Amino acid sequence: MAVPLPDYAKPLLDGRTVVTLATLNEDGSPHASPVWAARDGDDVLLSTLVGRQKERNLRRDPRVSIVAVNPENPYEYAEIRGTAALSPDGARELVEQLSQKYTGGAYTNDGPGDERVTVRVTPEHVTGMGMR
Amino acid sequence: MAVPLPDYAKPLLDGRTVVTLATLNEDGSPHASPVWAARDGDDVLLSTLVGRQKERNLRRDPRVSIVAVNPENPYEYAEIRGTAALSPDGARELVEQLSQKYTGGAYTNDGPGDERVTVRVTPEHVTGMGMR
Repeated sequence: MAVPLPDYAKPLLDGRTVVTLATLNEDGSPHASPVWAARDGDDVLLSTLVGRQKERNLRRDPRVSIVAVNPENPYEYAEIRGTAALSPDGARELVEQLSQKYTGGAYTNDGPGDERVTVRVTPEHVTGMGMR
Repeated sequence: MAVPLPDYAKPLLDGRTVVTLATLNEDGSPHASPVWAARDGDDVLLSTLVGRQKERNLRRDPRVSIVAVNPENPYEYAEIRGTAALSPDGARELVEQLSQKYTGGAYTNDGPGDERVTVRVTPEHVTGMGMR
């Protein structure tokens, strides 16, 4: 069931700090990788390529956990658990938006055969702000 | 099977940037949280409390993924997959060492009933340095 994104989580996603995406490998073990992130209301938007480990994992099992941390104060963080939906729609525009946000420049890393997808994560459980 | 930690991963663990630990919840979904980390040779050392979500997850299933990122250049990162071993031995000394490294001061957050444990992660698969 979708939940609203708490206000404290929003600046952690709107800034330029990479977040960590955790997914599930085929054997059920966790996989984690750093990713660029944007926010669309209460949803988290990520970008990946068809065939990448995280993309194959998400097609098999869409359950994810995303951690966003303020590097200036790691007690300010959010763990966002939710379900991912993959779509090719707007994938080129999204990676361009992410590149502008994170690097200030255009995205030029994809090859001619690369199929990019948008990963939309709808939050179902959010915790944070009290690491020990 | 244990593998050596690649040289590029070592400064990412030796610095003062928090890492993200991914574990498995009881329903098999991923859980991720920011944690302090230290390195003992090729092993990654983390600290947690008995009863915390990550501690309960690790007792049930010790498979983890740890992501360490250079915040100055997120293309410099390591994903360390491995197996965690939990022990109360040296747990107080470790959290003190971590606190000195990350905050420059003593660790004073635990309550009288808190049981702290050392989480030793032996790497089995390490990737990184080429995020897209």
